[in-house]
Amino acid sequence: MRLDLNSDLGESFGRWTLGDDDAMLGLVTSANVACGFHAGDPSTLRRTVAAAAGNGVVVGAQVAYRDLAGFGRRFIDVPRADLTADVLFQLGGLEAMCRVSGTAVRYVKPHGALYNATVHHEEQAAAVVDAVAEYDAALPVLGLPGSALLRVAEARGLRAVPEFFVDRGYTPEGALVPRAEAGALLHDPDEATERLLRMLADGVVRAVDGSDVAVQAESACVHGDSPGAVAMATAVRAGLERAGVDLRGFV
Amino acid sequence: MRLDLNSDLGESFGRWTLGDDDAMLGLVTSANVACGFHAGDPSTLRRTVAAAAGNGVVVGAQVAYRDLAGFGRRFIDVPRADLTADVLFQLGGLEAMCRVSGTAVRYVKPHGALYNATVHHEEQAAAVVDAVAEYDAALPVLGLPGSALLRVAEARGLRAVPEFFVDRGYTPEGALVPRAEAGALLHDPDEATERLLRMLADGVVRAVDGSDVAVQAESACVHGDSPGAVAMATAVRAGLERAGVDLRGFV
Amino acid sequence: MRLDLNSDLGESFGRWTLGDDDAMLGLVTSANVACGFHAGDPSTLRRTVAAAAGNGVVVGAQVAYRDLAGFGRRFIDVPRADLTADVLFQLGGLEAMCRVSGTAVRYVKPHGALYNATVHHEEQAAAVVDAVAEYDAALPVLGLPGSALLRVAEARGLRAVPEFFVDRGYTPEGALVPRAEAGALLHDPDEATERLLRMLADGVVRAVDGSDVAVQAESACVHGDSPGAVAMATAVRAGLERAGVDLRGFV
Amino acid sequence: MRLDLNSDLGESFGRWTLGDDDAMLGLVTSANVACGFHAGDPSTLRRTVAAAAGNGVVVGAQVAYRDLAGFGRRFIDVPRADLTADVLFQLGGLEAMCRVSGTAVRYVKPHGALYNATVHHEEQAAAVVDAVAEYDAALPVLGLPGSALLRVAEARGLRAVPEFFVDRGYTPEGALVPRAEAGALLHDPDEATERLLRMLADGVVRAVDGSDVAVQAESACVHGDSPGAVAMATAVRAGLERAGVDLRGFV
Repeated sequence: MRLDLNSDLGESFGRWTLGDDDAMLGLVTSANVACGFHAGDPSTLRRTVAAAAGNGVVVGAQVAYRDLAGFGRRFIDVPRADLTADVLFQLGGLEAMCRVSGTAVRYVKPHGALYNATVHHEEQAAAVVDAVAEYDAALPVLGLPGSALLRVAEARGLRAVPEFFVDRGYTPEGALVPRAEAGALLHDPDEATERLLRMLADGVVRAVDGSDVAVQAESACVHGDSPGAVAMATAVRAGLERAGVDLRGFV
Repeated sequence: MRLDLNSDLGESFGRWTLGDDDAMLGLVTSANVACGFHAGDPSTLRRTVAAAAGNGVVVGAQVAYRDLAGFGRRFIDVPRADLTADVLFQLGGLEAMCRVSGTAVRYVKPHGALYNATVHHEEQAAAVVDAVAEYDAALPVLGLPGSALLRVAEARGLRAVPEFFVDRGYTPEGALVPRAEAGALLHDPDEATERLLRMLADGVVRAVDGSDVAVQAESACVHGDSPGAVAMATAVRAGLERAGVDLRGFV
Repeated sequence: MRLDLNSDLGESFGRWTLGDDDAMLGLVTSANVACGFHAGDPSTLRRTVAAAAGNGVVVGAQVAYRDLAGFGRRFIDVPRADLTADVLFQLGGLEAMCRVSGTAVRYVKPHGALYNATVHHEEQAAAVVDAVAEYDAALPVLGLPGSALLRVAEARGLRAVPEFFVDRGYTPEGALVPRAEAGALLHDPDEATERLLRMLADGVVRAVDGSDVAVQAESACVHGDSPGAVAMATAVRAGLERAGVDLRGFV
Repeated sequence: MRLDLNSDLGESFGRWTLGDDDAMLGLVTSANVACGFHAGDPSTLRRTVAAAAGNGVVVGAQVAYRDLAGFGRRFIDVPRADLTADVLFQLGGLEAMCRVSGTAVRYVKPHGALYNATVHHEEQAAAVVDAVAEYDAALPVLGLPGSALLRVAEARGLRAVPEFFVDRGYTPEGALVPRAEAGALLHDPDEATERLLRMLADGVVRAVDGSDVAVQAESACVHGDSPGAVAMATAVRAGLERAGVDLRGFV
C-alpha cells in the first residue's frame, strides 16, 4: 500500500503567521504551497519552498482566487480567461521560488473556494485546467474524486489525482459533509487513521449516516492550520507507518 | 551603429488602461513588461507578452515595489531579503506568461521608484541583483549608466546594460534632470532624435546647462504612457532608420 | 416633472484615470462616488467630493465588493456580516472626504456586481441595508425598481429610490438587457432623451421587443466612463431642460 | 498620579489573527485601533471597536501607510497631499465602526513606520496633522515626546499627547533604543512597572547607559501582539493599581 500525504502550507502573510509549516514539513510528502493570491508573501513562499526542498517534500502550487481579505474562501465569479491568467501568474511566481531552491512546481491543487467551485463549475474547472495544460501538460492536478476539475483535466490529457480528506466527514454520496453540519470534522486521530487504512485496503469509507461509500485516492490531505493539526498529522503518519504503508509523493 | 529601443508596457490594470501598447510594440525592440506589483493584472501581462512575441519584441521584466496605489513611484524601505523575494516572484509571474507565448524573460529593469532608488541605494541594488543572479545569471540588467545597480550587477558577473532616456534632460553630471525642474522633458521629436544620434556617434549629450556630458548606452528608453508618446516614438524611430541605425534588441 | 441625474464618479485609481469627472459634475445632480474598494484612491475621492460640493452636486456612496483587479464587477460570495462591515467602512471613508468638504454622504448605491447581486440575492441585499440602517437610517438607497435591495430597504424603513438607466435597453419584464445581448445599449442621445421623457410623462418605456413596459423612477443614471459618455449626458440634459424638466437631486 | 494605558489593537486581518484583543481590552484604557491600511479588515475593526466600547475603553485611530504586506512597518515616501487623504480615509472608515457602536474616534496615533517617520519627517508629520485638523481639530494626537508630529500638532492648535513605552529601552537622549540593539526591550514586568512609576513620580527614566533622562508622558504604551504581552500588561496594570495610580483615558 502506498500513499501521499499532502497539506496546505506557506499560508502566512507578512506579519501574520498561520500554521506550523516546519512541523508539517516533517510529516507530509507533498506541500500545497500558497501562491500569493490568497496567502503567502514572497518571503514566506521562498522560505516554505526551501524548507520543503530540504525535507524532500514535493512542492505543488495551491492556486487561488485573488482575495487576501477572504483568504480565498469566497467564490468569485472570475471570467474564464482571467482565471486562467491568474493561475498562470501564480504558477510562475511559485516556480521562481522553486527554481532558486533547486526544485520545481510538480503539481497543482486549487485552494478553498476555487477548490469547491471547480467541483461543479465547468467553466472555472476548465480555466484552471487550461492554465496547467498551457503551462506544463506534465503537471498532475490534485482534487476531489468525481469533480469537474479532475474530469476536465483527464479529458485534456492531464494526470488527474484524486485525494481523500483525513479529518473530514463524508456523505453517503462520497462528498464532504459541509463544515456547518454535524459530522463535518473528525477529531480523533485513531479513528481518522483507521478510516484511512480501510479506504486504502478496501476502497470504502464509513459515511456520516453509517453506510459505506466507495472512495479511491492516491493522496490524503491533512490540515495544517487548525489547532491540533500537527498532533493529528503526527498520529496519522505514525499509524500509517505502523501499518506498513509506503508514504511518498504521488508525483 | 546599433541601438535598442525600450519602453515600459503592460501597465494597465483591470478596468484601467494605460498607454497604447499595441502601437508601441510596433516601434520598440524591447518591452519592459510590468510584473503585477505596480501595474499589470495577469490578463494584461499575458496579452502584452503575446503581442510582444508576435512582433518579435524582446520581453524584459519591469520589476517594482508592491504598490498599486502609488504605481511603484514611491520609495519603500523594503528589507533586502524581502525585496529579493518580491523580485523573484515577479520574475516568475511574468515568466509564466512568456512560457505560454513561446518566449522567455530576457532581461530585468527596475521600475519607477525602485529604478531611482537603486541608482544610489546599495542594499536595494544588491537585493535586485541577488534575485536576478539566483534566478538566471544569464539575464542582463538594464539601468542608468553609473548606477549602483549596474555596478553591483557587473561585480556579480551579470551583464549590465546602460540606457539613455530619449526625452529626458541631462545634468552636466550625466544624471536626469528631476521632473519638477525646467528642462526635465524634451517635447520636440527632431531635437530628441538629433540628440540621440549624436550620443550614438560621439558618446556625448548636450546637458541642460549647455555643456556636453559623456553618455554611453546600448539601449534608449522611450516613454509609452504620456500623451504624444506614440508620436514621439514614431518620429524617433523613423529618424534613426533614416540615419541607418540598426535597431534591434540588446539581448 | 422633476428628475435627478446620477452618474458613477471618482473611479480613477492612483496613476489610472477613468472618465471625465469634471465634465460630468457639470451635468449631473447626484454623484455616486466610489469608496476605495473597487476604485477610488483617497486623493481621488477627496478631489471628486470637493468638486461635487463645489458644483452643488449631491454625493452618494457607491459601495462595492473589495476587488480592485475586477473593478467590483465580479460577484463575490461575501458572508453577510462581512459585507455589512465592508459597506460601513466604505461609507465612513467617503464620509471623511465629505466632512472636509463641508458636505456629507447623502445616499447609498451599490456598484457593479454588488448592484446586480442585490437585485435578487436577499442576503447580500440585507447586508447592504443593515449597513445603511445602522450607519444612518435617514440615508436613501438608490437601486433598480423591483430589486430585493429596494424591497428590503423599504421593509427596514429606509427610503428606497428607484432609478432608470438612460442608455440601457429594457426587457419586456422591465429588467436590463444583458450587456452581451443585442439592444443592450442605446447610442443615440435623441432616442435616449425621448425615451426618458416618455418614462417621465407616461411611466412606460419601449422594451427591446417593441412592447411597452411600466417603469417608474426618481433618478436616471447616465454612464460616465464610456467613450461618448460626456456627449450623451450633455445631450440628454439639454433635452430634459428644453422639455422643462426640473433637474435636481432626489435627496 | 494619573495615567492612560494604550495598546495597538484590531490588527488581525481576515483569516489571520494577531494578539489577544479581548484580554488587552480588559487591561488598557485607550485602544489604538488599526484602520485597514496596515491591518484590520472591516469585520475585525467592527468587533474590536464594539468590544472597546463595551469595556469603556477609549478608541483612537491607528493610522498607517497602505501596506498590508509590510504591516505598515516600512517607510513609504508618500507625497504630502496623498498621505493626508490616506489618513482621512482611515479616520472615516474607523469612525463608521465607532458610530454603529455608539462611540467615536477620540484621538489619532500613527502606526509603525509612519510613527517613526513623523518623529523627524516634517512633511509627513504635517500631512498627518493636516488630516486631523481638517477632520476634527478637537482630536488629540498621541506620539513620541519631542517628535515633529507633536510639535507640528501643537503649532496647529491640536492637543499633543506624549507617550512612554513600557517595555522599550531609552537612550540618554530620550529616544527609543533601536530594536536591533542590546537593551531595546524590557522583559521583566517588575522592572517595567518600577521604571514607569519613577517616570510618573519624578519625570525621569534610567537610560540604557545607566544615566537618567527626563521623560514626561500622559500615556504609556503596552504592546499587545508579542508573546507575553498580556502577562506584561497584566503585571504592569496591577503594579500601577497597587501604587494608587488613577488609570484612565487621557481624552
